[in-house]
Amino acid sequence: MKSYEEKTIATNSIYEGKIISLQVDDVELPDGNHAKRELVKHPGAVALIPITDEGKIIVVKQYRKAIERAIVEIPAGRIEPNEDPKLTAIRELEEETGYGTHDITYLQSFATSPGFADEIIHLYVAKDLYKIEDPAEGDEDEFIERLEVSIEEAEKMVATGEIYDAKTAFAILYVKHQLNM
Amino acid sequence: MKSYEEKTIATNSIYEGKIISLQVDDVELPDGNHAKRELVKHPGAVALIPITDEGKIIVVKQYRKAIERAIVEIPAGRIEPNEDPKLTAIRELEEETGYGTHDITYLQSFATSPGFADEIIHLYVAKDLYKIEDPAEGDEDEFIERLEVSIEEAEKMVATGEIYDAKTAFAILYVKHQLNM
Repeated sequence: MKSYEEKTIATNSIYEGKIISLQVDDVELPDGNHAKRELVKHPGAVALIPITDEGKIIVVKQYRKAIERAIVEIPAGRIEPNEDPKLTAIRELEEETGYGTHDITYLQSFATSPGFADEIIHLYVAKDLYKIEDPAEGDEDEFIERLEVSIEEAEKMVATGEIYDAKTAFAILYVKHQLNM
Repeated sequence: MKSYEEKTIATNSIYEGKIISLQVDDVELPDGNHAKRELVKHPGAVALIPITDEGKIIVVKQYRKAIERAIVEIPAGRIEPNEDPKLTAIRELEEETGYGTHDITYLQSFATSPGFADEIIHLYVAKDLYKIEDPAEGDEDEFIERLEVSIEEAEKMVATGEIYDAKTAFAILYVKHQLNM
C-alpha cells in the first residue's frame, strides 16, 4: 500500500478561517502523474454518548447552517488547541447538557469526510452523570435543545431518517449492539 | 425549532474548486446577533455495501490525501451533476470492484460533517453481484486495492480502528444488526 501514497509537490493556501482552512495541494500519484487535491483542514472534534441512569441517551437538536436544517446529534464539539480530547468531551457534555460525568470511556476515532477533509472525531461514552449547578455555557452563537431518548426511540429515528447525522447514527448502533444496552 | 434557523445576510464566495467550494456566510442568529459561518459545498456522494454470494463485504483500500493515510472504505463516490444517486452507486460499484448488481437497495442518507460541510452520503446495499467482463475504469487519479472481508472480520476492523471511516463503520454495524447478516 506504501506505493499508493501521494507525495506533496506544492501546497497552496487558499483560506485561513476561524474554524477551517482550505488548501490545494499538487501531488505526485503512484504512477508519476500529477493531480490536485482540494483539502479542508479542521482541528478535529469529539462526540460523546451521554447515558442517563434510566438508560436514555441525551441528544441535542441544533440548526446546522451547512445543511440548512436543524438535526438531532449526540453532543459534540471542536478540540481547542492543545486540549486533551477527553477534556473536550467533558467540557462539551457540561456546555450542551448541563451534566458532569464520573465515568467516561473512549470508544473509537473516525475520519468523517476523508475524501476532502481531515476532520477526525473521537467518540466517548459517558455514564454516571450528575447535574452541574451552574454549568458553563457553550459558544454564544450556539442555540440547542436537549432531548432524552431511549435506545429504541433513537434506533427508530435512525431508521426514519430523523437522525441524519453519520456520527450519531453510528453511535446509536454502537450503544445498542456493542455495549448491549 | 423553527426559531433556531440562521438567516443568511450575505454570502461571500471564497473558492470554487473542481470538487468543493468554500463560502463564508454572515448569518442572523435567533437572538438577533450576527455570526459568520464557514461553509464547504460538496455535490454529495453515495456509498454502497457490496455483498458477495458468500456473504462477504467488498471494501477498497485507498490513499486519502486529506488524512495522509490509506484507509479501508466501502465503495463510494461523488454524484455527477444531475445523476440519480442509485446510478452513481451502480457506476461506483463497477469502477471500484468490477461487479454489477441485480439487487440494489437504498438504506439511508446522512450528513457527514454538518458543522462545516453540506456533504450528504446516500447509502445502498448491493447483492446478487456478477462480474463485468470489461468494467469501466474509475477516475484516472484513483489507485485502489480491493479486499473481501467477512462481517466478523469487518467488525473486528472497526473495533481495532483499522476501519477508520465513519460511513464504513456505520455500514458494517448496519449490515450486521439491521440486515441480520
